[in-house]
Amino acid sequence: MATWSEAWARSRFVATPVARLATVSAAGVPHLVPVVFAVVGPTIVTAVDHKPKSTTRLRRLRNIVETGRVTLLVDEYAEDWSQLWWARADGAAQVVDAVPDPALLQALTTRYPQYTDRPPAGPFILVDVQRWSGWSAS
Amino acid sequence: MATWSEAWARSRFVATPVARLATVSAAGVPHLVPVVFAVVGPTIVTAVDHKPKSTTRLRRLRNIVETGRVTLLVDEYAEDWSQLWWARADGAAQVVDAVPDPALLQALTTRYPQYTDRPPAGPFILVDVQRWSGWSAS
Repeated sequence: MATWSEAWARSRFVATPVARLATVSAAGVPHLVPVVFAVVGPTIVTAVDHKPKSTTRLRRLRNIVETGRVTLLVDEYAEDWSQLWWARADGAAQVVDAVPDPALLQALTTRYPQYTDRPPAGPFILVDVQRWSGWSAS
Repeated sequence: MATWSEAWARSRFVATPVARLATVSAAGVPHLVPVVFAVVGPTIVTAVDHKPKSTTRLRRLRNIVETGRVTLLVDEYAEDWSQLWWARADGAAQVVDAVPDPALLQALTTRYPQYTDRPPAGPFILVDVQRWSGWSAS
């Protein structure tokens, strides 16, 4: 077993197309959804593909407005458990209707061809990553 | 897009070898790890493979002792986004040193050949699932 560097953990995020986003309500109830995302400097950006009627309609967005604490995980399962690994990003999140830097949107559309013809309209979740961590079995 | 029945969501858990477990500290900070697990009736069981010195050493265990609220997610990523789906189990969790019903341990060892020669010694996390939910793109 090994605990890996922040650089290793960040590189795992960059190389993995899907993460799971955990948020928490003001009442302390956790919520979890898979997300596509991009990493730009210390920021993880993810979009809500189908715009809800209000930014507080989706639970992940409401939770972020309420508490702002999030964690994201990437991992890969294998029947050979010596191949298991995961990487995690803990941080503070905010919900924005538009990205403050065009590079954030471009990072998403570059990474996912599905976004080329139909860029995400937002809202977006921006995560200021305060800690990258990771683990692997080997 | 479709929201699926509780039975569909539960069947997705039964068919998927890895889930992600979200827990929350008393201070409201979320935590996330991948877990192997088994479903027995309304219960999800997962084991801590390498026994920590105390059951409060691992953050997932400490969080469960502190708040008891958890959510687990299974999902499958595909480049064809019309194939995306996820299923979620929300519930109340407890940490136990030994399983109260041998069927829980047997479910784990039956599901994972890796456990055959070396059954998990615990502690175990037992989740009383209060809601199964799910979504698929198609």
